[in-house]
Amino acid sequence: MAERELIEYITSLTGRGGPPWLKVGIGDDAAVVRLPAGREVVVTTDMLIEGTHFKPGTPPEAIGWKAVARCLSDVAAMAAKPLCLVAAVSFGKGAERRFCRRLSRAIWQAARDLSAPLVGGDISSGTDVLTIAVTAFGTPGPRGVVTRSGAEPGDAICVTGALGGSLCGRHLTFRPRIREALNLASRFDLHAMIDISDGLSTDLLHIAEQSKTGVVLYADRIPVHPDAGRSGSKGALRDRALHHALNDGEDYELVFCLPPEQAEEAARSGSLDTCVTIIGKITRRRTYNIVMPDGSRHKLWSGGWEHLKRLK
Amino acid sequence: MAERELIEYITSLTGRGGPPWLKVGIGDDAAVVRLPAGREVVVTTDMLIEGTHFKPGTPPEAIGWKAVARCLSDVAAMAAKPLCLVAAVSFGKGAERRFCRRLSRAIWQAARDLSAPLVGGDISSGTDVLTIAVTAFGTPGPRGVVTRSGAEPGDAICVTGALGGSLCGRHLTFRPRIREALNLASRFDLHAMIDISDGLSTDLLHIAEQSKTGVVLYADRIPVHPDAGRSGSKGALRDRALHHALNDGEDYELVFCLPPEQAEEAARSGSLDTCVTIIGKITRRRTYNIVMPDGSRHKLWSGGWEHLKRLK
Repeated sequence: MAERELIEYITSLTGRGGPPWLKVGIGDDAAVVRLPAGREVVVTTDMLIEGTHFKPGTPPEAIGWKAVARCLSDVAAMAAKPLCLVAAVSFGKGAERRFCRRLSRAIWQAARDLSAPLVGGDISSGTDVLTIAVTAFGTPGPRGVVTRSGAEPGDAICVTGALGGSLCGRHLTFRPRIREALNLASRFDLHAMIDISDGLSTDLLHIAEQSKTGVVLYADRIPVHPDAGRSGSKGALRDRALHHALNDGEDYELVFCLPPEQAEEAARSGSLDTCVTIIGKITRRRTYNIVMPDGSRHKLWSGGWEHLKRLK
Repeated sequence: MAERELIEYITSLTGRGGPPWLKVGIGDDAAVVRLPAGREVVVTTDMLIEGTHFKPGTPPEAIGWKAVARCLSDVAAMAAKPLCLVAAVSFGKGAERRFCRRLSRAIWQAARDLSAPLVGGDISSGTDVLTIAVTAFGTPGPRGVVTRSGAEPGDAICVTGALGGSLCGRHLTFRPRIREALNLASRFDLHAMIDISDGLSTDLLHIAEQSKTGVVLYADRIPVHPDAGRSGSKGALRDRALHHALNDGEDYELVFCLPPEQAEEAARSGSLDTCVTIIGKITRRRTYNIVMPDGSRHKLWSGGWEHLKRLK
């Protein structure tokens, strides 16, 4: 199979035309996107690598979905609306024609289903393992973007959904919280938000550091996913599950900070398809703590995933 | 070295502030770019892979430059002005702290030098070989973008610079023809343009196919770079050099089509730092031919680089 044949296949999926704001689509040196007048653009990029982000043998449909969904999870974390995306793919050694077509179709379809049509890309074949880089674009909702740096002392910390044990399968099938983020941002004064890709502890500490605040988490309020107890690590069941809920990566839920009375309202009403739970608060003093069910207070460590930590 | 430490290092290069149109820069879930009112945005993505696009052992400064420059060459090929870029990097196995910092700095610096500041990215470590995906953004010049599909019968075909033998070194050091493209597009009615990444024969046929035209090339007019004669393939020197000029990839020169009288003017006056040469013409009949120095006419094959061609 030739690169050109694959590009023709992908172009054929889209057909003629395309959305009215797309002036030049797949097949030129670059895509040209016409934007609403005077708007800001949200831009984010993410690499998905065989062996790190999915196991060899994973169906291409799941791989394509995950590559697109996790990139759009970052768009959601800004409270922005997906606009479009581009994907660069290096097929690993021995990739077969049918696999190339299925993966291309999966990326195209996930992008369409999540309202961020594929407008361009790049095809290579030089890596040992399948590697996909997706770059997504979005436009801020009517109340603007929500960054990591705006949390204020006294804010409640909330989370969507339930956490932990994503590797049991959800990391391949999750739906990014795009509608939920836009819905929450339209109803509440979100001061800061992040999506949980590296683990609640790690990602929440990004908010604390960038907002120059501290945090207190209440362990017994953290919504623990049933999958979190199914992992193989040691310790009592509840502690083990809590550990996973705190530190597993790839939940792709949202953590956000807002005034406490608004947080109560958000927790009561939920947000579209998911529940919202208050799990802690932002403090002026820049310490990071977690209060355990027995009332004891411990330092909250960044225990989630970090790349490069094994490098010299 | 930790991922976070590297992000802090990259942020420290940029310092506080950044350009006035950058509302949110490196370090959040996504970058936020404020665009001039009502403008179009040009978007393109490119993956650079160790072993395919550069040899193991290449200095990180050269790798970073090439990753950025070849992506911006696509922006140039649209006659657009670079705006900013994002980069996703997966450091291969055994990457050292010093290498990670040097490569990060090289990408940041190339982006700055080519007027497309780095505004975000992604760091991973799962590939066997170093893999870099750059996505670049641009805004069209005052006369709009130039695509591959607008060539008209009777147009002259022009090329900037000289071709062939790029692997002798130029593929790591070339400067994308950004200023030249903007300059040409402001002075002439460019009907179609592409940058030579896969080889003149392959890339010119993209223009012909997408414009639904034919082409005639004149072999003795093709500007052959001195490096094109230094390669190891067989045949008489001039033929061998011509072969490389026609089919080597990674020249990153521009091929463009415009009315013949304007092409004469462009060839007389050049374009900033480079010469412009008329090398052929666009024909109504959809055949692809090359006229050799002895007057014989041959079919022009797409002899350049294509990924995936060895796949099943």
